[in-house]
Amino acid sequence: MKSILVQLDTDPQPSVFDRVVAVDAGVDQLFSHGGATPETVESLVHGAIFTRGIPDLSRTAIFVGGSDVAAGEHVFAAVQQAFFGPMRVSVMMDSNGSNTTAAAAVLRARRHVPLAGSVAVVLGATGPVGQRAAELLALEGAHVRVGSRSVERAAETCEAIAGRVDGDLSPVATADPDGVSTALEGASTVIAAGATGVQLISAEMLKAATDLEVAIDLNAVPPLGIEGVEMTDKAVETDGVVRYGAIGVGGTKMKIHTAALKRLFDANDGVLDTEAIYRIGESLEA
Amino acid sequence: MKSILVQLDTDPQPSVFDRVVAVDAGVDQLFSHGGATPETVESLVHGAIFTRGIPDLSRTAIFVGGSDVAAGEHVFAAVQQAFFGPMRVSVMMDSNGSNTTAAAAVLRARRHVPLAGSVAVVLGATGPVGQRAAELLALEGAHVRVGSRSVERAAETCEAIAGRVDGDLSPVATADPDGVSTALEGASTVIAAGATGVQLISAEMLKAATDLEVAIDLNAVPPLGIEGVEMTDKAVETDGVVRYGAIGVGGTKMKIHTAALKRLFDANDGVLDTEAIYRIGESLEA
Amino acid sequence: MKSILVQLDTDPQPSVFDRVVAVDAGVDQLFSHGGATPETVESLVHGAIFTRGIPDLSRTAIFVGGSDVAAGEHVFAAVQQAFFGPMRVSVMMDSNGSNTTAAAAVLRARRHVPLAGSVAVVLGATGPVGQRAAELLALEGAHVRVGSRSVERAAETCEAIAGRVDGDLSPVATADPDGVSTALEGASTVIAAGATGVQLISAEMLKAATDLEVAIDLNAVPPLGIEGVEMTDKAVETDGVVRYGAIGVGGTKMKIHTAALKRLFDANDGVLDTEAIYRIGESLEA
Repeated sequence: MKSILVQLDTDPQPSVFDRVVAVDAGVDQLFSHGGATPETVESLVHGAIFTRGIPDLSRTAIFVGGSDVAAGEHVFAAVQQAFFGPMRVSVMMDSNGSNTTAAAAVLRARRHVPLAGSVAVVLGATGPVGQRAAELLALEGAHVRVGSRSVERAAETCEAIAGRVDGDLSPVATADPDGVSTALEGASTVIAAGATGVQLISAEMLKAATDLEVAIDLNAVPPLGIEGVEMTDKAVETDGVVRYGAIGVGGTKMKIHTAALKRLFDANDGVLDTEAIYRIGESLEA
Repeated sequence: MKSILVQLDTDPQPSVFDRVVAVDAGVDQLFSHGGATPETVESLVHGAIFTRGIPDLSRTAIFVGGSDVAAGEHVFAAVQQAFFGPMRVSVMMDSNGSNTTAAAAVLRARRHVPLAGSVAVVLGATGPVGQRAAELLALEGAHVRVGSRSVERAAETCEAIAGRVDGDLSPVATADPDGVSTALEGASTVIAAGATGVQLISAEMLKAATDLEVAIDLNAVPPLGIEGVEMTDKAVETDGVVRYGAIGVGGTKMKIHTAALKRLFDANDGVLDTEAIYRIGESLEA
Repeated sequence: MKSILVQLDTDPQPSVFDRVVAVDAGVDQLFSHGGATPETVESLVHGAIFTRGIPDLSRTAIFVGGSDVAAGEHVFAAVQQAFFGPMRVSVMMDSNGSNTTAAAAVLRARRHVPLAGSVAVVLGATGPVGQRAAELLALEGAHVRVGSRSVERAAETCEAIAGRVDGDLSPVATADPDGVSTALEGASTVIAAGATGVQLISAEMLKAATDLEVAIDLNAVPPLGIEGVEMTDKAVETDGVVRYGAIGVGGTKMKIHTAALKRLFDANDGVLDTEAIYRIGESLEA
């Protein structure tokens, strides 16, 4: 029986990126639907669960994607609400690559720093990738400083994450260089996940952060958020700091994405959210 | 040469249900088009008939679907009008599962009751599934009572069916319990295909219908139209009446759907409408 | 690794014609996107180039199609602008079959007439197919008469073509029979690519064109542009003139289309425009 992946993308055009990865992960048949909304997915999900018999439902799965992560979260929730008891299929959410990118960044950091008990800073932590990276760092037992230009928004993000994981999270204001420098004091890890084109850490600030061991910049368009990190940097050690750019993290991200797609077909009840995708990435490190 | 099924769906999103069944029926390549209209299908049909040579056209076929049966009928007609003499491909119409569901219900009834000369009642017979079930019962030689809350609409439906098959059809008004009970007098078979959430036959009325041998309720959402029938009932005999719910009929429906899709590729001139699909279902019973 | 063709079609529904040809050309996975615009293709192209590694990019390609050739040209340009250095995939443009049809017509003419130094007339040369046929005739060294009802538009088309190929092109006004007859004086080849339903050359005019050796009419809907040519004519010689209709050229067109699609996967940097597609067709003649 052929494996079927139903791609529910919130953009008008379903992502070619996600389509290529699905094909390369070995999916036999890919049903790509653009313009997915919480309102329209119910009948699509019912089509996925009411055709094949329950023992065969593990051969069908759903992938939620698109550039708008918040929209994807709503579709992800709507998909799960459309299931009927045992009539369900596995579902993965990775809008804008948010889950796989955050997982890859934290797994890469973990290779260089024992995260438990360490201090980790996430800049741009109110965005979808930043928030997920903060969640995973907390999960690993790090003391996570959740950075945003607005300390109120940072605090909201801490609360949101605390609703999902039991961790140590504190909001930090990073509106100006002093705020960022304070946030970096004593930190071993920094992950920059801020908006495109905004430099958050200068070379000078980086040099002053003497406890820093890993600096990861997830921006894919220059100028990057951390001066001195290149997009293609992959575990490049300079001045005692191991550096990663978006492309440097990309290989790990792609492996996680591919592995998670394959995992979808192991059973018919997988829910691949941030943590589940991270655990899949973790299993690849072994 | 790969088999290609062109799915023309009148809904914005092409049905995942129909896509899965097509894959499981062994279609090699499925071209799914949502938002099909009579106006836009001509060039799509031309694309299907003007590429491969005439001897290979049996490897391409068209499936018309979507939740709106009337819209599907218009697309089904437009598809056939776009053919050019021998340049044509086989086409099947099953919007909202209307043809396969009606065929499955009547074939199931036929297992328990010799239909020819018997009295059969269809409740909700003005809807797409009900109308098709009435047509097929007439085709089998039953005296068909075509039920609707409005006797005028029931009469219109009788006329519409009489334009297609030569049978014995009479309109019955089922606006109130007395009307329904009168309709059931002397009937061996009842098929309920009414609107969601409306109970048409109470347990008491069912008990009073002493000639009844089969009761089929095609509603997929409770409360069903016949009290005492469960959605999962499949040939369950209680108080002398064999009962079927929507899921109980579903297996037969799915087999007919799959067989009809396969039959599309036997030749390049099949037109799988209500009766043709019923005949395919009939051949599976042998 | 599976071959992937990303079909970017400017029509709301991606062409079924192009889909069937892609399947029959052996494409493993076809990603069909309707409604493609220059604005929306960038992220789709990025999805195609940023997933597989550079050595594997030759297994992915892009096809630009749709009924509107001008819209297709803009998308074709936008696709190429979205590439990043070596991160690119091969791309073919054949909106409305314009490139493959023009190539087939000129290759067919060439079988019967040595084009270099001969006089060739294109009627309806300001349209997308006519303009491409004129370009290819000029490339072959013919003295090309570029015909249009408006001599100003004909002159604009000559200039446009001269910007791409180094050839001998002259505008001719074909608003009335005298203009057409003058254009045909001394011509060996005529290709009619005018609007549907307009007869440009009467049987009498054709007889008077005593130097004419090949007459090709690309109109697919009668009445055709050249009286006495039938749609199905394929190298039919009558009164000393070899005749082709649209269907007569269709076999060659289809072979070029199929061969070009296969060629897309030879490397990751092919740009299959009018001339490149013609060269592919030429290689099939050998």
